[in-house]
Amino acid sequence: MARTQGSHSDITGPRIRKAALGLFARHGYAAVSMRQIAKDVGVQAGALYNYTPDKQSLLFRLMQDHMQDLLAAYGELEKPADAETALRRFVGFHIRFHMERPDEVFIAYMELRNLTPENFSEIEGLRRAYEDSLEAILQDGQKSGLFSVADTKIAILAVIAMLNGVMTWYRAGGRLSLDEVEQVYWDMVRRAVTA
Amino acid sequence: MARTQGSHSDITGPRIRKAALGLFARHGYAAVSMRQIAKDVGVQAGALYNYTPDKQSLLFRLMQDHMQDLLAAYGELEKPADAETALRRFVGFHIRFHMERPDEVFIAYMELRNLTPENFSEIEGLRRAYEDSLEAILQDGQKSGLFSVADTKIAILAVIAMLNGVMTWYRAGGRLSLDEVEQVYWDMVRRAVTA
Repeated sequence: MARTQGSHSDITGPRIRKAALGLFARHGYAAVSMRQIAKDVGVQAGALYNYTPDKQSLLFRLMQDHMQDLLAAYGELEKPADAETALRRFVGFHIRFHMERPDEVFIAYMELRNLTPENFSEIEGLRRAYEDSLEAILQDGQKSGLFSVADTKIAILAVIAMLNGVMTWYRAGGRLSLDEVEQVYWDMVRRAVTA
Repeated sequence: MARTQGSHSDITGPRIRKAALGLFARHGYAAVSMRQIAKDVGVQAGALYNYTPDKQSLLFRLMQDHMQDLLAAYGELEKPADAETALRRFVGFHIRFHMERPDEVFIAYMELRNLTPENFSEIEGLRRAYEDSLEAILQDGQKSGLFSVADTKIAILAVIAMLNGVMTWYRAGGRLSLDEVEQVYWDMVRRAVTA
């Protein structure tokens, strides 16, 4: 049966995803049942299976959507000619994109262990594609003599881990604005890789 | 009743902690029952309650032990006179201490949400004590003009997040030895904070 715009499943899908995301983030994937998700959405458990074959597929789609949204949003950024501006833009983009998605970030890290091997490979591939875009910036800066890092593969993991840390402690309305936080992180990242 | 060395509870305690740690790390705190922990240890569920009043206390003690071990081990390091050597030592210590405790590290991050408010405060206090020791090094280096960071509070969170990243990707026997990895991270940390 072809889905039509505004059909029941078009409306229910986002609500199921939202409920699953919140419940997985709060209690952990293993502790949440399809029945609980259905209850949270306000539908019968059976209705969930019209949307998703099982809980694993639901988790996988949440993680896949998150990574695809990340890659699409990053792909839309204007790519500056010089590596330093590109790195500056990456830092700002990474912090702000993830800051708006704390549940997705938490699940992306925590629930990798609960993916089937095939699904894990798929998510790993998307993650690697994002990391590759940062590595390209560092390699570009290395070539032009602007950057100097002993190992670009480790450098990208170090930079991303450092930036991800913001999500664990930053609260809006705190001591520093997000602009100020971004500036402090950029200053440290820049120095860590600059020749 | 006073506990005597080698008594039943002295032997069972570490086995309960080990089983709980492994199960919490694999399935998440919320998904693991006291009954499963008892089964893993090979005792009746009732025997668990001789050791711990409930699952929350078990989680709290695992996290508290981890943080207290960390503080004790760090406290035993010789404190060098200059800030750069102290920072170098912190980086090596942090990576190696945590590398040996992947389950504890995972739980320390993931299960904070499952602590009662009182237990959370207690663990936060221990974490802050550890962070303070790094902040003291950075402040010391700032005073002597060796380091220059815009905000020492953010700098310590950035450095610790960067170093914690190692635990998520490093595998013994891979492309780089732990010594090499430590060297690359130290090089980036040093540059990120050096004036």
